[in-house]
Amino acid sequence: MSKIKIKPNISPFPMPVAIIGALVNDRPNFMTVAWFNRLNGKPPIWGIAFGKKQYTLEGIKENKNFSINIPNVNLVKKVDYCGIVSGRKVDKSKLFNIFYGELESAPMVQECPLSLECQVYEIIELPGITLILGEVIAAYTEKQYMSGEKLDSKKINPFTFSQPDNKYWTLGDMVADAFSIGKDFKK
Amino acid sequence: MSKIKIKPNISPFPMPVAIIGALVNDRPNFMTVAWFNRLNGKPPIWGIAFGKKQYTLEGIKENKNFSINIPNVNLVKKVDYCGIVSGRKVDKSKLFNIFYGELESAPMVQECPLSLECQVYEIIELPGITLILGEVIAAYTEKQYMSGEKLDSKKINPFTFSQPDNKYWTLGDMVADAFSIGKDFKK
Repeated sequence: MSKIKIKPNISPFPMPVAIIGALVNDRPNFMTVAWFNRLNGKPPIWGIAFGKKQYTLEGIKENKNFSINIPNVNLVKKVDYCGIVSGRKVDKSKLFNIFYGELESAPMVQECPLSLECQVYEIIELPGITLILGEVIAAYTEKQYMSGEKLDSKKINPFTFSQPDNKYWTLGDMVADAFSIGKDFKK
Repeated sequence: MSKIKIKPNISPFPMPVAIIGALVNDRPNFMTVAWFNRLNGKPPIWGIAFGKKQYTLEGIKENKNFSINIPNVNLVKKVDYCGIVSGRKVDKSKLFNIFYGELESAPMVQECPLSLECQVYEIIELPGITLILGEVIAAYTEKQYMSGEKLDSKKINPFTFSQPDNKYWTLGDMVADAFSIGKDFKK
């Protein structure tokens, strides 16, 4: 098949989905993001792209901390809702059961299988977004999401998001073990 | 269930997988990454975390461009291989069929459903990694991966990667339409 050129403004791969929690004007607020990932190993630093006018960003800049919460499939309606409505217009503070960890101003979502408490490490301004680099200072889960000492992706039951088709997807079947199946490869 | 604290050095969500292509010492090289995402909409800027000593990074810094290639499930062995062996030790230039686009030094993978040609936008040094921000100047796919004018996630058939369990996963079932199912949500 021959290649065709398409518009470069696309994200055609399964993106992770997270709920960002922050206090904004002293009220817990939650927004959904998909343009994020882990960036640095030690210390664990994650990067999250925020629209420059996003309400949550105001709280993060003020308090210098926030939470990253990984939702599971059961939460998909609330997750989508948090991506549609702004905390500037709607009070989202009662949407989830909230808990706090070591920091006092990073509200976390009890219903999410995993929550990461983050301190702002650096703020980088790009043309259309503000890139927040956050250092994870603590991570919280529940025994039900683990197999032995490790988190278990199937027990977490997360979902991904794709653009431009704008759909949420479950985690499918296991294809192979990473850092393993490639060892067999001989050119 | 009560929350327990776990080590914060984790990435417990389905991460996207890409093959980064670059010329290093005039030879095409390919490496696998999972710590990346789209960051800026207009212009389309993506962020990719590279280990500071990675061979591919030398070529990107020299040529100021590279490619991001989204593989499908059929390529999982080669993808894993590209994440295990360094181009410093092994010649990976014959691993894929290569094509070039507008830039002359960003080798792209013919077998991948999608390839993005990128110019370096900014280089940000973090403690353990170098964050390369790349602006997508052109995107290439094939008609077989599209439904009408849009890329179709199921036709692309991508896979994701999870840590710390180190597994690759297919895209599962569609859960819901984004920016849609949340509209029904009433607290």
